[in-house]
Amino acid sequence: MTFDFHAYLKSRKALVEEALDRLVPAADRLPARLNGAMRYSLLIGGKRLRPILALAACEAVGAPLERAMNFAAALECIHTYSLIHDDLPAMDDDDLRRGHPTCHKQYDEATAILAGDALLTLAFELAARPVEEVRAEQQLAIIEKLSAAAGVHGMVGGQMLDMEAEGQELDLPGLQNIHIHKTGALIYIACLGGALLGGGTPEQAQQLKRYGERIGLAFQITDDILDEVGDSLEMGKNVGADREHNKATYPKLMGLAQARQEAQRHIDEAIKCLHDLPGDAEPLRELARYIISRTH
Amino acid sequence: MTFDFHAYLKSRKALVEEALDRLVPAADRLPARLNGAMRYSLLIGGKRLRPILALAACEAVGAPLERAMNFAAALECIHTYSLIHDDLPAMDDDDLRRGHPTCHKQYDEATAILAGDALLTLAFELAARPVEEVRAEQQLAIIEKLSAAAGVHGMVGGQMLDMEAEGQELDLPGLQNIHIHKTGALIYIACLGGALLGGGTPEQAQQLKRYGERIGLAFQITDDILDEVGDSLEMGKNVGADREHNKATYPKLMGLAQARQEAQRHIDEAIKCLHDLPGDAEPLRELARYIISRTH
Repeated sequence: MTFDFHAYLKSRKALVEEALDRLVPAADRLPARLNGAMRYSLLIGGKRLRPILALAACEAVGAPLERAMNFAAALECIHTYSLIHDDLPAMDDDDLRRGHPTCHKQYDEATAILAGDALLTLAFELAARPVEEVRAEQQLAIIEKLSAAAGVHGMVGGQMLDMEAEGQELDLPGLQNIHIHKTGALIYIACLGGALLGGGTPEQAQQLKRYGERIGLAFQITDDILDEVGDSLEMGKNVGADREHNKATYPKLMGLAQARQEAQRHIDEAIKCLHDLPGDAEPLRELARYIISRTH
Repeated sequence: MTFDFHAYLKSRKALVEEALDRLVPAADRLPARLNGAMRYSLLIGGKRLRPILALAACEAVGAPLERAMNFAAALECIHTYSLIHDDLPAMDDDDLRRGHPTCHKQYDEATAILAGDALLTLAFELAARPVEEVRAEQQLAIIEKLSAAAGVHGMVGGQMLDMEAEGQELDLPGLQNIHIHKTGALIYIACLGGALLGGGTPEQAQQLKRYGERIGLAFQITDDILDEVGDSLEMGKNVGADREHNKATYPKLMGLAQARQEAQRHIDEAIKCLHDLPGDAEPLRELARYIISRTH
């Protein structure tokens, strides 16, 4: 029996989007415009990588994916809010996201700020909903880790470092430090949280956390490579933007060929973390490979 | 023995500020500027009404205030983030807050957006930290309620309604609806959460929630009155701003005298909710009176 990764990805994306649509319903009451902006940015598309990773990690430790569904939706809310705020005129000032107008272009700046705030807040409401078979102590611990990964010492801090680095000469450790926080934190917490919700042992949870850290790095290197060589259609945003802003990227710092090698090295290391898991780890292996496949 | 409310308020404010200073320490690592902006807005001053209410509600049901301290700090983080974002140029565009430059004036707009995001995220990290003597199930339920009160159907939704109302003719129910969400939600959740953390019965928790709803309304009416008659020094912000923006206010819709009466009526109703509590409810009674005392 071969594993049909394409079909897997498609069905998981559908599952996640069905959950998002259900958990963030169209407004039957005010404020309808704010609700509309939240749903616009949340449902406009995207790879749903973080929620899919959380579900896959939950299954890899041998639990049904339903147990991680609210958490998976929470991750996508946090990811989406961060995109909305990063796109704002005072930040990266982007007009296009996932091939569509950014939230502040489609609505307005104030609505976009509030839609981001509301999505971030909603994420914690979802993460706090009781889950059958999961101890409340465990859920609390996951919320604490999720906040830490998303906040000043995680994702938000990474965005700040990224902004501060603009116009500066960055070396490789400096660039890596930005991405570990900006992109990496939410990816590893997806894997770690999914494993913990699935009842994984502390050791299994650590394995999946390390897996997440590695694919996070590979993910960012791949994004940099795509920005260098990809096309606008594939990325759904303006390509060459990093070059335009004269930002440090992996291809610029180590050359395209070595950047590809480096991404591959992280993926190999990630896959090595997946030994001896009680559930099906094949989807996580394929997800790791998928992350860099777009560069070839 | 008479209750020295002035001394009480002063010592509680000091307790809360000591906790904030400890829970959001000065950065020993990057990003220092973001950490600085968070601390600037958090520690610059303010009445600390929400955290003080949470601590007082916890004591009113007979528990030591320490049990609600992390939650109290979380409330102040959420309140502060909402002020930072509301002050942004795309929102209310205010230069002055608590007598000091607003966060985006002291730092810059991007830093202010991120500082708000980081404070909101931190709030849930604090609320999720285990508290001795409090069941994890209870804490999860409080986090869920806190998110709901702070999000699209609570505080953030209220700010959206407020923005949408600008330039519109608002009637009294419309004005009240804005304030129930924008200001009221976080005030009632302070009281409700404090009561639940203190181990109050469901009935006691409901009493304190209703108390919070009433003082929330009185608080907003008082703010409107102060905007009409107060002075800039007392408010620490530009007075008459609501009039300038031609915004609906209670004094404008019902006249100054009746607005005062209405605030008093809500305070009377709030105090009525405080019967038969196992702990000391005197501070809550005084806090209710304090909320409107500034108008006399």
